[in-house]
Amino acid sequence: MTRLAYRFRDPALAQLALTHRSAGKPNNERLEFLGDALLGVVVAELLYEAHPHASEGELSRLRAQLVNGQALAVIARELELGDELKLGSGELKSGGFRRDSILADAFEALVAAVYLDAGFAECRAVVRSLFEPLVAAIPRSSKDAKTRLQELLQGRGWPLPQYELVDSHGEDHAKTFDVTCEITDPMPIRAEGRGSSRRAAEQEAAETVLRQLQDLQD
Amino acid sequence: MTRLAYRFRDPALAQLALTHRSAGKPNNERLEFLGDALLGVVVAELLYEAHPHASEGELSRLRAQLVNGQALAVIARELELGDELKLGSGELKSGGFRRDSILADAFEALVAAVYLDAGFAECRAVVRSLFEPLVAAIPRSSKDAKTRLQELLQGRGWPLPQYELVDSHGEDHAKTFDVTCEITDPMPIRAEGRGSSRRAAEQEAAETVLRQLQDLQD
Repeated sequence: MTRLAYRFRDPALAQLALTHRSAGKPNNERLEFLGDALLGVVVAELLYEAHPHASEGELSRLRAQLVNGQALAVIARELELGDELKLGSGELKSGGFRRDSILADAFEALVAAVYLDAGFAECRAVVRSLFEPLVAAIPRSSKDAKTRLQELLQGRGWPLPQYELVDSHGEDHAKTFDVTCEITDPMPIRAEGRGSSRRAAEQEAAETVLRQLQDLQD
Repeated sequence: MTRLAYRFRDPALAQLALTHRSAGKPNNERLEFLGDALLGVVVAELLYEAHPHASEGELSRLRAQLVNGQALAVIARELELGDELKLGSGELKSGGFRRDSILADAFEALVAAVYLDAGFAECRAVVRSLFEPLVAAIPRSSKDAKTRLQELLQGRGWPLPQYELVDSHGEDHAKTFDVTCEITDPMPIRAEGRGSSRRAAEQEAAETVLRQLQDLQD
């Protein structure tokens, strides 16, 4: 526990978090369930703050980049959790302390252990200190949705999107614009956007088309 | 907001949480991302407490039962969120305020709004008060894994599992038992379990077989 910026009041919790199921029961599997959820919320909040203009889809995508087995194993190695794992003899021989999944699970369990030991504020602080540099390293998508959509289509040699104003309504000082964005390749997609300016409506429509394109690729 | 046991310091947050994307931007989509994660952790903790013997797989399954679009829409209706939704004119005409997905999303967003308004403790209390009765209503699986596996197989007319002790090691006062559990129908599955008693090892092996059977059915 030397590397984690937290000192456990109840060291048994830390021990449990580092006990792999190969060592028998009780082990860290239940803590892992709780820790996964805690990581999810703390990283969600970090991204929510750091990317005030990102859509829900973008936030989800960014979180999946930061919170997955491989990424968590990197953190677990920085914390040198491998040296402190309690493994069964089989896993010990086959080098389980180096395995991504075992390391990632132990890290998740450790996050839950901090929560149970000291509460949310402490757990959040520990997780934020680990993830803040990673969130800061994400290139801030300064490009707007229309630009990203155009670049994506051009990169594939597909035709550019067509934007069309379909409606505008409301008083002059509070007008609302309805715009469609339409592409033909790789398949026909048409989305509507609404905004207080034509440009804002176009951005929203482009964002929706981009998301649908990304969903196709997933 | 009359039905939610929480009074917002910043009513604009509640307004935002109840604004569907059909009403333009800003809307509740980003809050929904955060709220989904918050619900996940608070319900995870409730289940972790209420089911101290449930495996990670069982906890995940129970949470998916409680936190999904349909279940959240039920809560949203109890809170009468439909009456307070801000929808675009299209959704308004087509009855969007009655739609499960729109109601569930608004509820998630509202959970995030409470968090941003007052912090985790308050948000946790609100979510717990809504989910505690639901968690309490889950039939407590008092049956152990061996019994559940046996009942499942008997119910389908499949042969009963075979348990076999494959190894025991360690000093007499701290012996470890390795046991296999094997079934033939609906397909051959064999799992190992380890424990400080033969019975404990059998339970663990049965649990793994049960989980694999459940994965097959998903």
